Amino acid sequence: MDSNTPLRVALAGLGTVGGGVVRLLDANRDLITRRAGRPIEIVAISARDRNKDRGIDLTRFAWIDDMRDLAGHAAADVVVELIGGSDGPALTLARQTIAAGKGFVTANKAMIAHHGLELAQAAEAAAVPLKFEAAVAGGVPVIKGLREGAAANRISRVYGILNGTCNFILSKMEAEGRDFAEVLAEAQALGYAESDPSFDIDGVDAAHKLSILASLAFGTRPAFGDVSATGVRHVIAADIAEAAALGYRVRLVGVAEADAHGLFQRVHPHLVPVDHPLAHVTGSLNAVVAEGNYVGRLFFQGAGAGEGPTASAVVADLIDIARGEYGSPYAMPAAALTVEPAADTGERRARSYLRFTVQDRVGVLAEIAAAMRDAGVSIESLIQRGVAADGSAIVAIVTHEGPERAVVHALEKLRGSQSLSGQPLWMPILG
Amino acid sequence: MDSNTPLRVALAGLGTVGGGVVRLLDANRDLITRRAGRPIEIVAISARDRNKDRGIDLTRFAWIDDMRDLAGHAAADVVVELIGGSDGPALTLARQTIAAGKGFVTANKAMIAHHGLELAQAAEAAAVPLKFEAAVAGGVPVIKGLREGAAANRISRVYGILNGTCNFILSKMEAEGRDFAEVLAEAQALGYAESDPSFDIDGVDAAHKLSILASLAFGTRPAFGDVSATGVRHVIAADIAEAAALGYRVRLVGVAEADAHGLFQRVHPHLVPVDHPLAHVTGSLNAVVAEGNYVGRLFFQGAGAGEGPTASAVVADLIDIARGEYGSPYAMPAAALTVEPAADTGERRARSYLRFTVQDRVGVLAEIAAAMRDAGVSIESLIQRGVAADGSAIVAIVTHEGPERAVVHALEKLRGSQSLSGQPLWMPILG
Repeated sequence: MDSNTPLRVALAGLGTVGGGVVRLLDANRDLITRRAGRPIEIVAISARDRNKDRGIDLTRFAWIDDMRDLAGHAAADVVVELIGGSDGPALTLARQTIAAGKGFVTANKAMIAHHGLELAQAAEAAAVPLKFEAAVAGGVPVIKGLREGAAANRISRVYGILNGTCNFILSKMEAEGRDFAEVLAEAQALGYAESDPSFDIDGVDAAHKLSILASLAFGTRPAFGDVSATGVRHVIAADIAEAAALGYRVRLVGVAEADAHGLFQRVHPHLVPVDHPLAHVTGSLNAVVAEGNYVGRLFFQGAGAGEGPTASAVVADLIDIARGEYGSPYAMPAAALTVEPAADTGERRARSYLRFTVQDRVGVLAEIAAAMRDAGVSIESLIQRGVAADGSAIVAIVTHEGPERAVVHALEKLRGSQSLSGQPLWMPILG
Repeated sequence: MDSNTPLRVALAGLGTVGGGVVRLLDANRDLITRRAGRPIEIVAISARDRNKDRGIDLTRFAWIDDMRDLAGHAAADVVVELIGGSDGPALTLARQTIAAGKGFVTANKAMIAHHGLELAQAAEAAAVPLKFEAAVAGGVPVIKGLREGAAANRISRVYGILNGTCNFILSKMEAEGRDFAEVLAEAQALGYAESDPSFDIDGVDAAHKLSILASLAFGTRPAFGDVSATGVRHVIAADIAEAAALGYRVRLVGVAEADAHGLFQRVHPHLVPVDHPLAHVTGSLNAVVAEGNYVGRLFFQGAGAGEGPTASAVVADLIDIARGEYGSPYAMPAAALTVEPAADTGERRARSYLRFTVQDRVGVLAEIAAAMRDAGVSIESLIQRGVAADGSAIVAIVTHEGPERAVVHALEKLRGSQSLSGQPLWMPILG
């Protein structure tokens, strides 16, 4: 590369992250030029509202009214997409940019989870870079860590805390002994949670990220449709307290595993042992663990969202491109990715946490214990505690290791029981 | 790259790590070929003893009696050096390999700390790869994390637990309340510490690694000679107990910082707050924190040594080379690295831990307190505890934040005092 030739960037989207990318490239310009070996320069921008005050001088850049025109913009080598959405304008822009023979960088986890394979195939055919480090764990270079750092390893399992909003809420519930709804409302007021928080708190966002990690870790085709996702809505303060008494913390963990049973991908609240590194991930941090057959357990942690961290990852991708250091988006050519069947979760063996809210009356415990016994679930410990003014109580159970199928059967047996108030909560214990 | 053309590797050294590289390339062959885009094949090997049983079939490879002949071996694209030593055969091999126009991969932290700049200049001039991921934190991809993952950031500070032997010893002292010498002897018996452990326990090994990280993080020329290194020999069980009582753990931390005062590089036992991620790094793990102006605090953790993790990092470098994804070893061309003066540590402001072993007699505390006052050191807390059958006691002090110079002055004032037994121990508190 000629060190005087800048890498020319067209930027779609000037929200929090887009503004961050402009500010970062300004603030660290000289350092980035030294590291990248040549300047990285924004040449054109497009966003919904041209006149909004973003506190940045945009007159330096060509303004493009129709975002789709960025793809064909003659002066650009790479398009950076920061508008979001799995389909629609973002996907159109991605396809057109690659078809036009330009590189494409995105932070868009939903689009990559749904359409990453198609885009990777197109990028390989066109011999252009496609990069999405910012799509998983924000500023933490976990995609690079799997694609390159751990590339020599057969990865048996990749898992982590992939949604900062949920971790913020669970940490706050833990620190303050409060219930979910109350903490969510506060997080929304503070801007840590969206006004419609379902993407975050129902685990969809984490599921997007998990499917990307799984593909990189196992060399399997992205299979977002096979991720099962359960969020944190049903975790109550008592769950966190009982978990703590037993030596665990509650975390929303996305787990992917590949073995003879197929590809397992699940986002679910877990009990995490206090001596596990994920137990110490608090607030809105993200963290990822990868277990390799030679490297052992690798752990990455940092800020998973926000202007600065996300911009850091986007610009890291641009620096890789400026250096000419890039290749297959999924660590191997798309054609080499294998198709794995979704694993049968019933076969998975784990210890489980079960919590029932019960009417405090004769025979409740016997009914629960009988259902467990009949389903073949072996109880390691059981605590019953009165909790509420209405006389209801909590029964929290930890099971011995056994197949998940048995726990599901036990819960089915108890469905509709007059002794229970509301739905029981099941959480696997991270092993 | 033609996907049928293997990357051909000549391997120098068949000790623990060399054997691990051979085994890893065998065990994960198909996966590595898919990820690298082409096979990675060892074609020639050299080691001291041809006839030693290593449990590996070596007849597949050309055996080269004189290691120096690997550099010119016609069939090899890359030489992997795993013999160690900062100078001597390793350095000769590195120079000759690069001069012969081949790539060079090493796990040799001592050589890179001392001669990395020269080798990087030579590699750039010859346009060949020079890579050393395994030289810092074993299997943890921290060099890649700084060189690429955090490349968009101005890094203000990089620090971490860089020596697994010391961390193993400190963790064991902490868990079992035992003293250093006893735990060291046990670690040696178990093979976790060398029979001559000084490279590890005096902080030299960590200093090698720290100087490599500093150069990558700050874009400064490697300056191993400016690293001050103090190991863990003088930490006693009482220090760990007092630290715990105050909410800290004792860790050997290498810290590098670049600011207007110059480049600061120090390996020293520190008090680490229990809510800091480094406090939870136990056993022989390594961990590195990098603080960037956009990404915030990045944290990497994993196995810092051993056959599997080190081989994992070496082969990751080979995969980068096979993919053609490599560039300047220090993240920017060697000519772009700046020369920074060593920082004046006296100007550094920190809270400090000071521990004195004292004769339990009238006036001891007054003498210590007066020395502190006269040097301008402000005491935040002080504990005196009788500890030994001989009537000696421990005085442990935590100071308010202040310049290190003042603490040094206070200790000078107390030098030779009849009230003190042995040397006082100073440890900075990680802020």
